[in-house]
Amino acid sequence: MIVDLTDEQARAALPLKWGAVEPGVVPAWVAEMDYALAPPVVAALTDAVRRGTAGYPPFGDGGVGATFAGFAQRHWGWSPPDDASVVVGDVIAGIRLVLEVLCPPGPVVVPLPCYPPFRDVVAIAGREMVAVELDPDATDAALDLAAIEDAFRAGARTLLLCNPHNPLGRVPRRAELEALAALARRYDARVVADEIHGPLVLPGLQRTNGPVFTPYLSVDERGILVTSPSKTFNTAGLHTAQVVVLDPAEQARLRGVPLPQNHAYSPLGMIAAVASWRDCDDWHAALVRRLDEQRALLADLLAAHLPEARMRPLEATYLAWLDLRAYGHDDPAAAGLEHGVRVAPGADYQPGLAGHARLNLATSPERLETIVGRLAKALTG
Amino acid sequence: MIVDLTDEQARAALPLKWGAVEPGVVPAWVAEMDYALAPPVVAALTDAVRRGTAGYPPFGDGGVGATFAGFAQRHWGWSPPDDASVVVGDVIAGIRLVLEVLCPPGPVVVPLPCYPPFRDVVAIAGREMVAVELDPDATDAALDLAAIEDAFRAGARTLLLCNPHNPLGRVPRRAELEALAALARRYDARVVADEIHGPLVLPGLQRTNGPVFTPYLSVDERGILVTSPSKTFNTAGLHTAQVVVLDPAEQARLRGVPLPQNHAYSPLGMIAAVASWRDCDDWHAALVRRLDEQRALLADLLAAHLPEARMRPLEATYLAWLDLRAYGHDDPAAAGLEHGVRVAPGADYQPGLAGHARLNLATSPERLETIVGRLAKALTG
Repeated sequence: MIVDLTDEQARAALPLKWGAVEPGVVPAWVAEMDYALAPPVVAALTDAVRRGTAGYPPFGDGGVGATFAGFAQRHWGWSPPDDASVVVGDVIAGIRLVLEVLCPPGPVVVPLPCYPPFRDVVAIAGREMVAVELDPDATDAALDLAAIEDAFRAGARTLLLCNPHNPLGRVPRRAELEALAALARRYDARVVADEIHGPLVLPGLQRTNGPVFTPYLSVDERGILVTSPSKTFNTAGLHTAQVVVLDPAEQARLRGVPLPQNHAYSPLGMIAAVASWRDCDDWHAALVRRLDEQRALLADLLAAHLPEARMRPLEATYLAWLDLRAYGHDDPAAAGLEHGVRVAPGADYQPGLAGHARLNLATSPERLETIVGRLAKALTG
Repeated sequence: MIVDLTDEQARAALPLKWGAVEPGVVPAWVAEMDYALAPPVVAALTDAVRRGTAGYPPFGDGGVGATFAGFAQRHWGWSPPDDASVVVGDVIAGIRLVLEVLCPPGPVVVPLPCYPPFRDVVAIAGREMVAVELDPDATDAALDLAAIEDAFRAGARTLLLCNPHNPLGRVPRRAELEALAALARRYDARVVADEIHGPLVLPGLQRTNGPVFTPYLSVDERGILVTSPSKTFNTAGLHTAQVVVLDPAEQARLRGVPLPQNHAYSPLGMIAAVASWRDCDDWHAALVRRLDEQRALLADLLAAHLPEARMRPLEATYLAWLDLRAYGHDDPAAAGLEHGVRVAPGADYQPGLAGHARLNLATSPERLETIVGRLAKALTG
């Protein structure tokens, strides 16, 4: 049910991931998947384009909130009210909006490593950033609650949470999120939870009593959720995401901003979002099975070709966080590029961090073999 | 060659314009046209969706700059270099970006009436706005260069120009723009020119020695152009516009901003933009002919049904600016809505201005008759 794209098809579907590498280089960097779109999404988009749906997006959310609530209830046993979603262009636009409108004054805590635009959006919103760095030698990549409390004590009043975590691939545990929520309450701080990877918890670990996804708002009713179907359904270019807050007065504040502060969403994206959240459970189940297989394959390939690589347990997402310091390259991604594979440099996610890389495994088994083979050649050849 | 949409088709294609009115109400408010998309745009979009083009937009401009340069050269005998365009999500996102990145500190001059988000974007960019109001009794709606100079003298360093003007429908004359450019030079100020209506100068007046469109950058090489094919080709929801500056160092500054500051454009929008600028000259010629016919029809209808309405000469756009004060309604749009027609209130464009409305004539002749008929009933019944 998951259809692998050929190189040529991938170049048309994913102009950034495939367009930014020279022919012959295998791209395993930006977070997009080399798979065909879910058929219900294609059908919805095709129908919308046939009807010429290219005008301004409608007032309201076009059903995005209600269909997301349905997806959340079916998959996580929790859901926000149907009318709690405010449509935005993408997750980063949503974070910028809530920093500008809802988050209290004061610095913003950003655990590192992080998706690089997290750091940029804090600066662009005119906020000071307090980084909480993960020690690359830490055995576990749990939230450093002590460091977060220190930051709150020193005046920070917002935390950007990535749940599940990109690039660490980790699913925060419910108890950990409850402790974070208690901290936020104590310091009157707000947690902004990017849960775009929420649907991508991998079933393999779940079958063996592995972690399950905990929607942050299910443990903190003052939490601010920012999410989008675009990661799970591979539609980043369609520009529809959503901010979810539970307080109707805060929803009204978000809906009441002047147009230039929130206008980057598209009607095609909204139509694709509704189809994604509502009609794609079968495709989604096939996707996480495939990603699980890719994860197992990656572990085997690393064991065979890069046995000293240390991969953080990949509980969610299709982005493996690799500690490759044993091979003595400050920037393994730069070395890989010289051998025909593009992975993302670890220092993009935690500035100054040497010897790490993020590897995107959402491709065919054959390409994944090529990716690891070339990376091994680059690091050990 | 211009295909009128049925009500049902328009509701699917234009979810804001048609979705925000009750069934039975004729929408003549937001600036979208009740016409089917140009066939080359539909073909390009259909092909892109068939190939699953939903990923992140590519690095670079995807040909948007070069195809715009071609359009500009063919239509106006002037063009920027092919590589001078920086893609942005829409005109307002482009204005926000250049206010944040290129425009010198100091207040921003905004001639009123104006497209309402002009005022909002100045505030959101953290700038003070200096309004230069048009006297509704002025015989001509030319730029008030004396008031603009006063504002520059008092410290303003940026002016938002709308060329041609929405909602006044006026095409600034070359001499007027040259005088503005001289003022900008003298005060070291920057002019940000929104030229999204540039291709919509109506040919009827041109044939009778009427005004022609002057690209602002052709008279001021320090000008900042923000434009998009989305107004002429009816694709506002696809999210692709462009900022054009001629100084390569400034282009580099715009291209170098962090992702969260400029990420709202879409690959489908870029593909539609290339098709629009490159392949649609015949459709565009048919469009302006049709709009010209609608303008003539509107003049006849007003003469017959609202003889005391004063319409500013509609030199460009499909948005007629109507002075309806003679009929004694503070808000003619509110009166119209009670009689089944939605036009835009004049006070949206110039706060506090009574008795004006903006009427969108880009529809079928039959609907335009209904629009004016209902408005007349509302104002005179």
